Parts: sequence; structure tokens; C-alpha cells
Amino acid sequence: MAEGIVIALDAMGGDHAPEMVVRGAHIALKRFPHVHFQLFGDEGKIRPLLAKYKKLSRRATVHHTEEAVSGEAKPSQALRSGRRSSMRLAIDAVAEGKAHCVVSAGNTGALMAMSKVVLRTVPGIDRPAMASYFPTRRGESVMLDLGANVECDADNLVQFALLGDVFARTVLGLVQPVVGLLNVGSEELKGHDAVREAAARLRENSSPISFYGFVEGDDIGAGTVDVIVTDGFTGNIALKTAEGTVKLVIEFFRSAFRHSMLGRIGYLFARGALNRLRGRLDPRKYNGAVFLGLQGIAVKSHGGADALSFANAISVAVDMKANGFLDKIREDLQRLHAHGTSPKAQSAAV
Amino acid sequence: MAEGIVIALDAMGGDHAPEMVVRGAHIALKRFPHVHFQLFGDEGKIRPLLAKYKKLSRRATVHHTEEAVSGEAKPSQALRSGRRSSMRLAIDAVAEGKAHCVVSAGNTGALMAMSKVVLRTVPGIDRPAMASYFPTRRGESVMLDLGANVECDADNLVQFALLGDVFARTVLGLVQPVVGLLNVGSEELKGHDAVREAAARLRENSSPISFYGFVEGDDIGAGTVDVIVTDGFTGNIALKTAEGTVKLVIEFFRSAFRHSMLGRIGYLFARGALNRLRGRLDPRKYNGAVFLGLQGIAVKSHGGADALSFANAISVAVDMKANGFLDKIREDLQRLHAHGTSPKAQSAAV
Repeated sequence: MAEGIVIALDAMGGDHAPEMVVRGAHIALKRFPHVHFQLFGDEGKIRPLLAKYKKLSRRATVHHTEEAVSGEAKPSQALRSGRRSSMRLAIDAVAEGKAHCVVSAGNTGALMAMSKVVLRTVPGIDRPAMASYFPTRRGESVMLDLGANVECDADNLVQFALLGDVFARTVLGLVQPVVGLLNVGSEELKGHDAVREAAARLRENSSPISFYGFVEGDDIGAGTVDVIVTDGFTGNIALKTAEGTVKLVIEFFRSAFRHSMLGRIGYLFARGALNRLRGRLDPRKYNGAVFLGLQGIAVKSHGGADALSFANAISVAVDMKANGFLDKIREDLQRLHAHGTSPKAQSAAV
Repeated sequence: MAEGIVIALDAMGGDHAPEMVVRGAHIALKRFPHVHFQLFGDEGKIRPLLAKYKKLSRRATVHHTEEAVSGEAKPSQALRSGRRSSMRLAIDAVAEGKAHCVVSAGNTGALMAMSKVVLRTVPGIDRPAMASYFPTRRGESVMLDLGANVECDADNLVQFALLGDVFARTVLGLVQPVVGLLNVGSEELKGHDAVREAAARLRENSSPISFYGFVEGDDIGAGTVDVIVTDGFTGNIALKTAEGTVKLVIEFFRSAFRHSMLGRIGYLFARGALNRLRGRLDPRKYNGAVFLGLQGIAVKSHGGADALSFANAISVAVDMKANGFLDKIREDLQRLHAHGTSPKAQSAAV
């Protein structure tokens, strides 16, 4: 189903680039044998790596550039002086219709800024959001924004709800995802103006979204809803808090096992079970934060990603393209418009 | 060291009140045999429970009232019509100097509102904050605000830093606690105006606080700093996200063990180790959110608390009184004043 999909890869982005990018593409090609790759970066480094993978060599083109965006570059700096960088050229390929998606493990701020300027937002969406999915007790959920917008108003949150809804349909394959708004309590009066106003608008009958209402921090892991909507400040902190807590609990488990002879014996028996658990929580499985709301598909892989992790980020991009993410966003915005509702505040109606 | 300390207890607050309140006081009395309790609530219910514990009976007085604040009451409603409630009378006892601390497992919003109005804030502190401590990889840390103030400016955050610092000294026994400000990145330019301005003020040489700088969500579990300062919206969500994640990981562990015969055998051997782990993460150990910044000590226990849990909330109150929390806050504010710095923005100097 991924027939004819072209993925532009920033071959120089990430701690282990370009090696892991090339090997990541090789792994992804096993999953999607009909995908085509465009590798942007230092040809002298990419070619020898590519030579190791015959199949990939046949389905990849190399686009040489000597420039790359450094991990320390500020977004404004990358925008100004990174016009010939591997990251920028990969984004340009999508803007020019030569590729369908761009995937990079490079500088997050630079990727966000460049994608915003080059790909532009879909009409009806004011600001793109960063989204990711993660395991919960009931399956998988999506959360956005994860840090692209530190301050958000009710318009932004309503638009994020729409973007998250379509992402859950296209990437998680849910028919009618349930959307919740992150808050400090479930009662209507809780929280600040932006969340209260966004909730009021999402509760309207004309809204195409299946809105659950407010959810709290512990609903994230519980999987109470499929899509969690929040501002980029809160979302970033919630996501990183969850990651840090997983590490903390696993560390405590380890020291509990090590602490006694019986614990060590138990560990030997339970090793298989524990490895399965590690697989279930493996952050590499959930690699790939997506910039939603742009007129193009842009996926950000973790900077420290290995090849498997990078392949998963590529998979997210392929899923979005294959399942028509952009078309569905446009359709939904049109349907909203036809219904006389808009994801923007209807100040005229007040 | 808890000689002569008087604790006012809202005997009617919490899902299992008054039984767990009385039994909680009994447990706490074993730890602090010189403490005295004042139990506010329905005498007809409290007396028969108290009769079971001889020692406690000798060190407790009962103050009858038929009214109690319901769990559903709004703060404004509780303030207006709860003047004869067990919660209000317990707070009044502190305000009138008859008790040193108040502990309640009742309605959080009502307790916060009543404490604020009755006990008032310490001069130099604009708004009280809710704080709690929790386990990390390096020991224990304190976080505030956990939900008392949904929106906070730089003044509030700087004041919270001061309150958290003194709490870490008095309750966690740290000599020079390190304070961090929760943000979406560690660079100076990250985040919104309030966190950036608060950080600039905490970095000043005249600040008595050992300021680490910005910390991110994963630093909470890592124990990077001793005190984490944030607004009540973010803090509430971060704390509940961490709680939900602990539940998620434990649930995953359980199902991993159950999944195979070897896993089940391993579990039998490792049971002791796992119980120790559960003890280490036991939320009952960390029961007791504290309202800091008031002219009195007010501790909120979880509504679903059992007796052990409630005894831990009492312990937090005793520690704060015994270690002179209120005096230290006043001293620190005076010292700041003498240095010509103030926890408020120095608009005159700009």
C-alpha cells in the first residue's frame, strides 16, 4: 500500500548519522518494499554506507550537500544560514512535490522552524503542533502539543484536537477516536480560560470530534482517551515526566531484585518476562514525533536514535501518507466550514 | 522533640473518616508520644472510636460539631456556609493559637480556601502553594505548586522557590537544598515570560537560594534537584502523570510475570523483592500535601487515605512545627529584605 511513496531523509541529522539513517532506511524498506528514498547529505559518506545494502541502493537517490544544521544552532540561525543544509533540502523536496514526507533526527527547533516556513500550515490551522503516540494500559494514545507552542489559546487547542483526531484515525487506525483536554480537574470550572473555552467549543453539537471532556495527568497512562490535547509547555513536561518515571520505576525494580538472593533467583526465571516488558515500553518503538498541521508530512526522530528507532520514525511517515492524513485534514476542515463551524472562535456570532 | 505540639484534626474529612482519623492519630502518637490532639467532629461517633485507644484518649480532646464540609462543595460555598464545620473549626483553632497545625483529609479546594482566609499568608508571600515530596532516584524531592494557583507570575514562582527551600530544610532535613525551575528546556531562552523572569531573579547573587536553573520533566524522577518549582497547572499535571505512569509500569510488570510459566515461578522467588519495591513507591508514605506560605501549618491528606497514610500526613505537620518552618520562612524573608532584595519584582529599581 506504500506504492510510489517517496521519503526525503536528512542523512546528516542525529548523533549517529549518517550510518543509522542509511541502516534505518534499509530496515524500513523491508517493511515497505515499494517506498523510495531520497538521501540528503555528504555523498562521500553516504555512498559507501549505501553500498552495503543492495535493495536499498536500487530504491534510493543521493542528493549531495556539504552543509548540515548543527545540534546547537538556534532555529532563527538555521533558517537564515541553513539554506543549503541537508535538513533544509529534504524539506524543500517535499515543498516542491518531489517527495511526500521528510524524516530527520536533527535539531528539533530548526526542523520545526524550517518546516513551518517552507511547508506552511494548512488553511484553517494557525500553528502546527508536535504529536507523538505512546503505550497506555488500554493500548496506544496520541498527545499534542509536545513543545512546539509554549503558549496556546482556545483556537489552537481546538485545532490541535482536530489534528490529533485525524492522526489517531490514520496512524493508530481508530474509527472514532475519543479526545480529551488535559486539565487539573474534570469539572467544567477547572483550569484557565483557554482550556475552558476550548472545552466549551469542543462540546458543541456541530463539532465532528468525539469529545470526552477534561482529563487529568493520571489519565495519560490509564488510556482514558485516545487523543490528549494540551499546550506545548504542559505537554512537553507531561511527556518527559512520564519518561522519567518509567526509568525511575525500572531502576527501583532492578535494585529490588539485586537486593536479595531470592530476588536474584527470581530474576533468572523471570528474565524472559522482563525482556518482554522492556519491549513493551521500548522508547524506540514510539520514536517519531510528528509536526501536524503543515501542508506536508514532517517527522522528527529522537536525536540519539539508532537504526531501528529511525526505521520506526520512517514508518510513521509512510503510514501518514498511505492513509491520506493530509487529505483527511483538509476534508475535515471543509466539513467544519460547511457546517458553519470553524476551529476558530466565532467572534462574529457573540 | 515534638513536646507540647498540638494538632487540630478534621475528624470528619476523608472517605473513611472518622475511623481512620482516630486510628491515624493513634499511630502518629506512637511516633510522637508528646503530641496532643484536638478532634473536631461528631462527638457521638468519635468517642466510641477513641475509647479503643487508651493512650490517645489521654492526649486527645473532642470538640463537637454536627456540620462537615462535603466532598462536592465548592470552595466559595464551603467558605460561606461551613463556618461551623469540623474543617473550619480545626483551622480556627490554629488561627486562635490553640493548636499549632491542622490536618484534614477533606475537600481540597475548601481546605485551601478556608486556610487562606482564616490563616492568611505570611507578609511577603502573595499566594500560598501546595507542596508534596516524593521518591526519586537520588532520594526525595519536593515539588510546588501542585494546583493551588493555576496561573502564576514570576513573583509567585520566586516566592514558591523560597517556600520550597525552607520546606526541604525543615521536613527533608537538607542543609542546602538545590532548587530548579520546571521548563521545556534548559537553555535561558526557553519557556514563557514568567519562568524566564523568575529564573533571572533566582540567578541574582543576592538570592539566598541555591538555584540550579531550569529542569525538565524527566529531572523529576531523576532527582536532579531537591526542590522543583512550577505553576499549579503544570505541577498538578506533572504529579498526576508520574502517579499514573507508576501504575502503568507496575501493571505491565504484573502482566509480564503472569504471561509465562517461568515468569510465574520467577514471581514466587522475587515476591519479597517486589514487596520491598512496592513499599518504596507506596503512595501512603508520601501522603500529605502541605499548604505553604500561610501563617499556620495546614496539611492535606489524600481523601482516600487509610490510617497509616493519615498518620504520615500528621507526621509532616509535626516535622514542620518541630523544625520551626514558620520561623525560618519569616527569617528568610527578613534576610532578603535586609539585603535589599525582595521576592517581589523590584519595579522601582528598573
